[in-house]
Amino acid sequence: MRGPGGVPSRLVASPSAGALREDRERGAYYARRVRALRVEVWSDIACPWCYVGKRRLEAAIARMPAPADVEVVWRAFELDPSAPRAQSPGTSYAERLARKYGTSVAEADAMIERMTAVGAADGLSFRFDSVKPGNTFDAHRVLHLALERGAQAAVKERLLRAYMSEGESIGDPEVLAGLAAEAGLDPDDVRRVLAGDAPAQDVRADEAAARRLGIQGVPFFLVGGVHGGSGAQPGEVLYQVLAKAWAEASPRAIPDGAVCGPDGCC
Amino acid sequence: MRGPGGVPSRLVASPSAGALREDRERGAYYARRVRALRVEVWSDIACPWCYVGKRRLEAAIARMPAPADVEVVWRAFELDPSAPRAQSPGTSYAERLARKYGTSVAEADAMIERMTAVGAADGLSFRFDSVKPGNTFDAHRVLHLALERGAQAAVKERLLRAYMSEGESIGDPEVLAGLAAEAGLDPDDVRRVLAGDAPAQDVRADEAAARRLGIQGVPFFLVGGVHGGSGAQPGEVLYQVLAKAWAEASPRAIPDGAVCGPDGCC
Repeated sequence: MRGPGGVPSRLVASPSAGALREDRERGAYYARRVRALRVEVWSDIACPWCYVGKRRLEAAIARMPAPADVEVVWRAFELDPSAPRAQSPGTSYAERLARKYGTSVAEADAMIERMTAVGAADGLSFRFDSVKPGNTFDAHRVLHLALERGAQAAVKERLLRAYMSEGESIGDPEVLAGLAAEAGLDPDDVRRVLAGDAPAQDVRADEAAARRLGIQGVPFFLVGGVHGGSGAQPGEVLYQVLAKAWAEASPRAIPDGAVCGPDGCC
Repeated sequence: MRGPGGVPSRLVASPSAGALREDRERGAYYARRVRALRVEVWSDIACPWCYVGKRRLEAAIARMPAPADVEVVWRAFELDPSAPRAQSPGTSYAERLARKYGTSVAEADAMIERMTAVGAADGLSFRFDSVKPGNTFDAHRVLHLALERGAQAAVKERLLRAYMSEGESIGDPEVLAGLAAEAGLDPDDVRRVLAGDAPAQDVRADEAAARRLGIQGVPFFLVGGVHGGSGAQPGEVLYQVLAKAWAEASPRAIPDGAVCGPDGCC
């Protein structure tokens, strides 16, 4: 795979995040000239703009000189932490939307149509007619397990599709185990984790960080630890930010000065 | 203390390196708008340009908006790893220099005079007449202990002064224990560490990183993990590099896009 710079993306090995961190500690990060850029995205599952933002981010990363060296971490954000694990909709999505915004059902239908068209433009098939509202806390716990297992990207994608396009009840632990298995996790591993408390603190920590960041809406992108902002921006905006952060992460030479070497001080 | 930007340097608490690292992991680094810049310097003790470079770096850091948020880590580099722990000079510094460079003693004396003048211009009193050559491996082990104890800056300064200005034998473990104690370490702690093997691997890891960086002479500065180069540059050069790296480490906003929030997707 080649980006616009014509640099083969696999020319350099992509080290693990842990190895990278350790190397950074000793400057070897600079020495190897392997550059890596971390993008953290706070987002939810029950969130059409998060799915759109994911597609646009992926498109922006694909335009980078070495897409494999852009590391994406999905952070937890619950739009409705008080939602019951699963609920029978009873009413249609348009009716629920109309109640929330105080509009007519016809107006809500128009909003849904617009959002569906936005998704379609990015290749997504939103099926608001079949969406099953539910709590996403356990989904975020599974995403943290997936992060540990190196399968977070696949699991995030699977859960978004299940919720937004397939009418799956992603608050149901058994549904989660099945979806995570399709994305490469061991379903028993998922069941064990969901029965316990382990990754709950990781989800809470993401959410605490979101509060410190002042995040009001998602997706929220944090690129290279310093470029941050909310929203499913056009791909071009995300690409420009990635390119800038990438340049800043590139090794650059300080003009030489006088040194002492093995043969003396010159 | 105020830098040229007029920003009080203590306005923001300076968190521990560990806390900072953990916060960075979750984007809280961005949220708090506490910026920190790491400068790694590979250098030796028996190295006049390293001492000059240290003074110039300190002066450059003092000009930064928040000097307390610039973290300096001293990395090990041995200019002469095969040097005996201690040796009786026998000959004068000028004679040793003349032999090394194949010059006359008078020419070597002139070099020493120039280096002495360079040091004096930065407030350093080089006493080449009293320098006691020796091995610096143990000094680097003590510096790694000092790094763990949060006293590395003080110990580095004390060892450089002892070697370059006071004619101390810094290859001698007892001398090292005494000097480190003056700089705030527990001398028994130093003796215990020098009797064992513990920080040797840290020294070796610094040196391995130096090889990967292609370092031929010291000091070598690595600023923010990406700006790297050898030599005791003029303070202005170092300041410009610090200022650039600092700007790159500052939080910046991505233009807003469409989001989902607690009240819906707008």
